[in-house]
Amino acid sequence: MRPLEPEPDISAAAEFSEVRSDLALEALPISGERFPGVRVEEDETNVCRVTRVIVENEIGAIRMGKPPGQYVTIESSELKRTNRSVHEQIATVFARELCRLMPYGPDSLVLIVGLGNWNATPDALGPRVVNDVLITRHLYDQVPVEKRGGLRPVAALAPGVLGLTGIETGEIIRGVVERVRPAFIIAIDALASRSTQRIGTTIQLTDTGIHPGSGVGNKRVGITTDTLGVPVLAIGVPTVVHARTIAWDTIEALVAQLRYSYKLFSILDEMQRDDKRRLIDEVLGPTVGDLMVTPKEIDVLINEVSRVVAGGLNVALHPDIDADELARYVH
Amino acid sequence: MRPLEPEPDISAAAEFSEVRSDLALEALPISGERFPGVRVEEDETNVCRVTRVIVENEIGAIRMGKPPGQYVTIESSELKRTNRSVHEQIATVFARELCRLMPYGPDSLVLIVGLGNWNATPDALGPRVVNDVLITRHLYDQVPVEKRGGLRPVAALAPGVLGLTGIETGEIIRGVVERVRPAFIIAIDALASRSTQRIGTTIQLTDTGIHPGSGVGNKRVGITTDTLGVPVLAIGVPTVVHARTIAWDTIEALVAQLRYSYKLFSILDEMQRDDKRRLIDEVLGPTVGDLMVTPKEIDVLINEVSRVVAGGLNVALHPDIDADELARYVH
Amino acid sequence: MRPLEPEPDISAAAEFSEVRSDLALEALPISGERFPGVRVEEDETNVCRVTRVIVENEIGAIRMGKPPGQYVTIESSELKRTNRSVHEQIATVFARELCRLMPYGPDSLVLIVGLGNWNATPDALGPRVVNDVLITRHLYDQVPVEKRGGLRPVAALAPGVLGLTGIETGEIIRGVVERVRPAFIIAIDALASRSTQRIGTTIQLTDTGIHPGSGVGNKRVGITTDTLGVPVLAIGVPTVVHARTIAWDTIEALVAQLRYSYKLFSILDEMQRDDKRRLIDEVLGPTVGDLMVTPKEIDVLINEVSRVVAGGLNVALHPDIDADELARYVH
Amino acid sequence: MRPLEPEPDISAAAEFSEVRSDLALEALPISGERFPGVRVEEDETNVCRVTRVIVENEIGAIRMGKPPGQYVTIESSELKRTNRSVHEQIATVFARELCRLMPYGPDSLVLIVGLGNWNATPDALGPRVVNDVLITRHLYDQVPVEKRGGLRPVAALAPGVLGLTGIETGEIIRGVVERVRPAFIIAIDALASRSTQRIGTTIQLTDTGIHPGSGVGNKRVGITTDTLGVPVLAIGVPTVVHARTIAWDTIEALVAQLRYSYKLFSILDEMQRDDKRRLIDEVLGPTVGDLMVTPKEIDVLINEVSRVVAGGLNVALHPDIDADELARYVH
Repeated sequence: MRPLEPEPDISAAAEFSEVRSDLALEALPISGERFPGVRVEEDETNVCRVTRVIVENEIGAIRMGKPPGQYVTIESSELKRTNRSVHEQIATVFARELCRLMPYGPDSLVLIVGLGNWNATPDALGPRVVNDVLITRHLYDQVPVEKRGGLRPVAALAPGVLGLTGIETGEIIRGVVERVRPAFIIAIDALASRSTQRIGTTIQLTDTGIHPGSGVGNKRVGITTDTLGVPVLAIGVPTVVHARTIAWDTIEALVAQLRYSYKLFSILDEMQRDDKRRLIDEVLGPTVGDLMVTPKEIDVLINEVSRVVAGGLNVALHPDIDADELARYVH
Repeated sequence: MRPLEPEPDISAAAEFSEVRSDLALEALPISGERFPGVRVEEDETNVCRVTRVIVENEIGAIRMGKPPGQYVTIESSELKRTNRSVHEQIATVFARELCRLMPYGPDSLVLIVGLGNWNATPDALGPRVVNDVLITRHLYDQVPVEKRGGLRPVAALAPGVLGLTGIETGEIIRGVVERVRPAFIIAIDALASRSTQRIGTTIQLTDTGIHPGSGVGNKRVGITTDTLGVPVLAIGVPTVVHARTIAWDTIEALVAQLRYSYKLFSILDEMQRDDKRRLIDEVLGPTVGDLMVTPKEIDVLINEVSRVVAGGLNVALHPDIDADELARYVH
Repeated sequence: MRPLEPEPDISAAAEFSEVRSDLALEALPISGERFPGVRVEEDETNVCRVTRVIVENEIGAIRMGKPPGQYVTIESSELKRTNRSVHEQIATVFARELCRLMPYGPDSLVLIVGLGNWNATPDALGPRVVNDVLITRHLYDQVPVEKRGGLRPVAALAPGVLGLTGIETGEIIRGVVERVRPAFIIAIDALASRSTQRIGTTIQLTDTGIHPGSGVGNKRVGITTDTLGVPVLAIGVPTVVHARTIAWDTIEALVAQLRYSYKLFSILDEMQRDDKRRLIDEVLGPTVGDLMVTPKEIDVLINEVSRVVAGGLNVALHPDIDADELARYVH
Repeated sequence: MRPLEPEPDISAAAEFSEVRSDLALEALPISGERFPGVRVEEDETNVCRVTRVIVENEIGAIRMGKPPGQYVTIESSELKRTNRSVHEQIATVFARELCRLMPYGPDSLVLIVGLGNWNATPDALGPRVVNDVLITRHLYDQVPVEKRGGLRPVAALAPGVLGLTGIETGEIIRGVVERVRPAFIIAIDALASRSTQRIGTTIQLTDTGIHPGSGVGNKRVGITTDTLGVPVLAIGVPTVVHARTIAWDTIEALVAQLRYSYKLFSILDEMQRDDKRRLIDEVLGPTVGDLMVTPKEIDVLINEVSRVVAGGLNVALHPDIDADELARYVH
C-alpha cells in the first residue's frame, strides 16, 4: 500500500476545469456523440432513469476527466420531494444497481463511511446516512447461525472533516480499515454538479472511489482502492453547484447570445479563457473557490435523500433477510 | 392594530430588483454621491467601520427602496474569523450602537426573536443567537430588589419557519407579543447581501423592523411596529447572496468589459433588461429564486457571528450590572 | 377564558405524591379492584394491549388524582425497539384510538404542540414528533378542492421550555391559539411513569390536556381546554422515572421483605411517611426533585417512539387520503 | 502492542461493585483513614478544591479498585452553573493540573478523543468538548517558524459509540493513533459517580487512561497506554449516577436508620448482600444495568462544563502563546 499522498489530478488538463462536476454523466458530450473508450447504457423505469457510463480505458479516462470504472446515475425529479411511494421504488432500483457493483458476497464485512461536515447542512449527507443505516457488526455474534443467511456484518463511520479534526479524512479511514479489515468500503458524499437542476435529483454510484478535490468539502487525498487497499464504492448526490460554475455558465450563455443575435463572432473569439476567469474573480471576490450555490430548502432535501440512500443500502446489504426480521436484532 | 397582511413592497419599482440586498448600505450610490432625504455618518475604529444611514423621509425611502429609519452597519473582515479579542471589541461597538436605537430604558421587558430555520445552517443565525443569549424574564421575581438596577427582564423565541410550522412567523410572534407584552422586540435574522464579500463581515442594526421578503427564508408578512404594535429593532448579518445576483453581476461585468475593450456601445445598449433576465433563468433553471450562494465553512461563520451578537446583546441589555453577577442568576 | 394561573393541584392530597406518575393506568389499584366513578375497558391485539380508563366524575377524579376524562394507554414492549412491522401495527391502533377522542371532523384545523426541551434527549419527544409530522396548513389553499376530501389543515409548534424562553409554555401556546384559531390542539409530551419498565413501552392518549407539574420538565400552568379555550388532546410516552420514585419503591420493597421474612410488623408500622421522606432526601441530596432515571439508549428510544407517534398522527389526521397522494403536496 | 482485548477487571472483587464510581476520590474511605499505597494531597483555592490521589502500587490499586497512577479532582459547586468569572478561574486551575500530568513538551502532537454518544445529552460531553476545542494540526505547516514557540499541533476525534458504528471505540482510536502517531492522547468522557451531588461539580484528571466499563456508555475495551502504545490522560466529569447506586444507597440508609432507631442489629446482620441485590433487581426491573440518574437540566450542565474543559485544554496545550494570537491561525 503506498503512502497517502495526493494523486495526480486527472482532470487538470481537461476542458472542465472551470465548471467542476463530480458527476461522470456531466462529462459526456451534450451532443450525444460518444468518446472513444467510453460506453453508455440507458434504462428507464416509470419513476427514474438509469444511465451507466463505463470508462473502459485510459483514453476514455482522459476524455472524461474521470478514472476508468463504472459510473451509474439514477435520476428522478421526485428524489428531493417528500414522496414515499416513489422513494421506495427509487430505493429498490438503487439497491439493484449497488448490488451489481459490490465485489463480495453477502457474508463479507462492509464499512460504510459518511463523508462531510455534520454542522453544515449542504455537506451533511454522508453523516446523515450513517445515522439512518442499520449497523450490525457488533450484533453479528449474537445472532443464531441459522438466521445468518442474509445478515451481513455492517460497520459505519462518520470521520468528520479536516477543519474539525485536524486529520485528513483519508488517514482516519485508513487507520480504521487496517484494524477492522472490511472486505470493501461504501463511501457516501455530498457532491457538486454543474447544473442546479441536478441538485437533489441524481444519485451516482461508482466503483472508482472518491478522488482528491471532489465532494462539497475539499479532500486533499483520495479515498480509493489505491490508498486504502480494499475496493471502494462511492455513492454521491449533488447538493451544491460551485459559484464559479454559475458565473462561467452565465458568461458562456451571454457570449452565445451575442454571437447569435449580434453576429459578434470575431470580437468574442478574441476573448480569452483568462479574461473570463479574471472577470469571475472580480465578481465573486477572493473567496470564490469556497462559494457554493445551494437551495434554501436544503434541510428537506438532505432529509429525504438520506432516507432513500439509507433504505436502499439496507436492502442491498442484507438481501436474503426480511427487513423486519433484521430489525429485531437491532437494539 | 391592523390585520397581518402583506405590506406594499416598497422595493418593487426600484432599480434593485435583480440584485436584492437586505443591507441599506448596498442601496447607496457607489459613486459616493448622496440621495436626497438620506443622511450618512461614518465612524472608524481600529477594528471596524461603522456607517449610519438615516432615511429621513419618503423621498429617501423611494430612492433607497427601504422605509424611513436608521440603518447602522458595523463592518469587519475579522467578524467571521475566530478572533476573540477583536470579537470582544466588535461586540462592544455593537452594544453601543444598539443602545442608541433602543426606545426604552433598562427596566423594560425585551422579547428577542430568532428568525430562520435551525435545520439549514445558512439560515440558522437567529435561533443560534437565541440559544446563546441570557434569558432572565422568568428569574426576575427571584432577584432581590437592590440588585435590580441593571437586570432587565429578557424573553426569547425561535418561532421556526413556515415550512416547519404551517404558520406565518409574524402570526406566532404577534400571538406571543399580545400575551407577554414586551416594551419592544429585537429580531435577529440571516440576511442576503449583494456582494459575497459581505457574507459574515457585516452586522446591520435598524429600527425599522423586518419587511416582507427579506432574510434568507421568504417572509410573506412584515415583522414591524405596524404589524406588531410595539417597536421592532432588527439585527441582521448577511450569510448568503442570491444566485440571481451572482448571475446578474457577471453579465454586468462582462458587458462593461466588452464596452470598454471592444467599444461595443451601440449593440450592448440595445440589449434589454428582459434579455438579461431570460438569460439568467436559462442558466439557473426554474428554481432560480430558491438558490443561494454561501461559503463552505458556513458552520464556522454562524458559530462566530452568533457569539458576537449574543455577547453584544447581553452587554447592551443589562448595562448597569456586572456580567458575572448577572450570570449568577442564570440557572 | 380565565387568566393563565396555576390550577389547584388535584393530586396534592392524593396518596401518589411520593411516586408521581403521569399515567392514569398507574393510579389504578394493583389489586384489580375498581374505584367508584372509574370505568376500565381492555383490549388486546397481537402486538399491543389497549386499556381505556374513563374517569366519570369527581369521585373518581379524587381517587385517581386525575381529572375526569378518558385515558387510553397502548402498551407494547416492542415500541422502543427498532421493529418496523410491529411499529406500523401500533401506529394503526394508535390512530384508531386518537380518532375516537378527536372532537371535530377531518376538515378542522389542528395545532400540534411538541412540548419539552430539544436540547435534553429524555425531554425531546415533543419537538421530535413536530419535526417528523406532516405540516399542511400553509399548503391548504394551494390544493385543488376536489382533493380536499381527506386533507386536513395541520399546523405545529415546538414552544421550548421556560429556561430557554423565559416564557411559560402555556402563554406561548395561548398567544398562538388566539391568532391561529385551531379547532383543537394535540399536545405531545415526554412523561414520567412510576415504573422503569414503562419507559418507552407505553403511549397514553387523553382528552383532559396537560396539567401543571406533569411531563419531564416542570410546567407551572396547565395546557387544557380551561386555559386555552379549545379542546386539548394530550399524547404522552414515559421516558423517565423520578429518582424519588426509585428510592421510595426501594424502601417499600425492603420494608415489605422485612415484614415478611422477619415479622417486624410493629416496628415498621411505627415508621412514618416523613421518616421515609427524610431518608430519601438524605440519599439523593437537595436537588432530588430534579433527578430523573432514564435508560442509556434514550436516543434510540426517542427516535423509534417519535416515528411511531408521528406516523400514527398522519394517519389519524388525514383519514380519507392516501399517504402518498398526501405526500405530494408537502414541500 | 498486545491485541485489543478486555482487560481483567480490577474492580470485580472490590467492595464497590454495587455502587460503581468512576471517581478515585469516591473510593477513598469516608473516615479520612488512608489505604496503604495511596497518597492524598489537598489544595483549596477560593473557587475550588483540588485533591490529588496517588495510587502508588498494586496494594493501593487493589484497595482502591483503580490502577496505579495519579487521580486529580477539581471540585466546585459553581461548575455546573453559568458563572463566567468562576469558570475562568476553574479553567486556569484545570490547565495547571493538566500540565503537571502531560508527559511531553509543548511541541508534541496531541490527539484529543471525545468519547460518548452525541445523540444522548448525558453522554455527549466528550463530543461537545471536541467541537469547542482549538484544532491546529492541519494549520501547523502554515504558521511561520518564529511563531511556533507556543503553538502545539492538536488533532481531535469523536469516534462515537458501539451502537452507532458497530466498532469498539478503542479499535477506532487505535487505528487512528497508528496513522497519526500522536505523542500522547487526552480522552474526555462523561462519568458515573456514586453521589448525585457530584454530577456537574467535579472534574477528574488521570494519567491512567480509561478502563473497560467506565463512563456513561459501556466500553468493553480499555483506552490506555497498554492498548494504544502511547500515554493516555483521561478527563472526566460525572453526569450520571447509576440507578442501582441510588437503590443500594437507599437500602443502606434505611438499614442504618433501623439499626440506630430500633436496635435491629441481629436481624439486619442476617440480611445478605444477595438479598439486597435481589430487592434492587425487583424494584428496577431487568434493564436495571442500563438505567442512569441524571438532572433535568442536563443540557445546561453539559454546555457549561464543556466550555470550561475546552477552555482549560486550550490554555494548557498552547502555554507560550497568547490566546488571541493563536486564534488568528484558526480557520
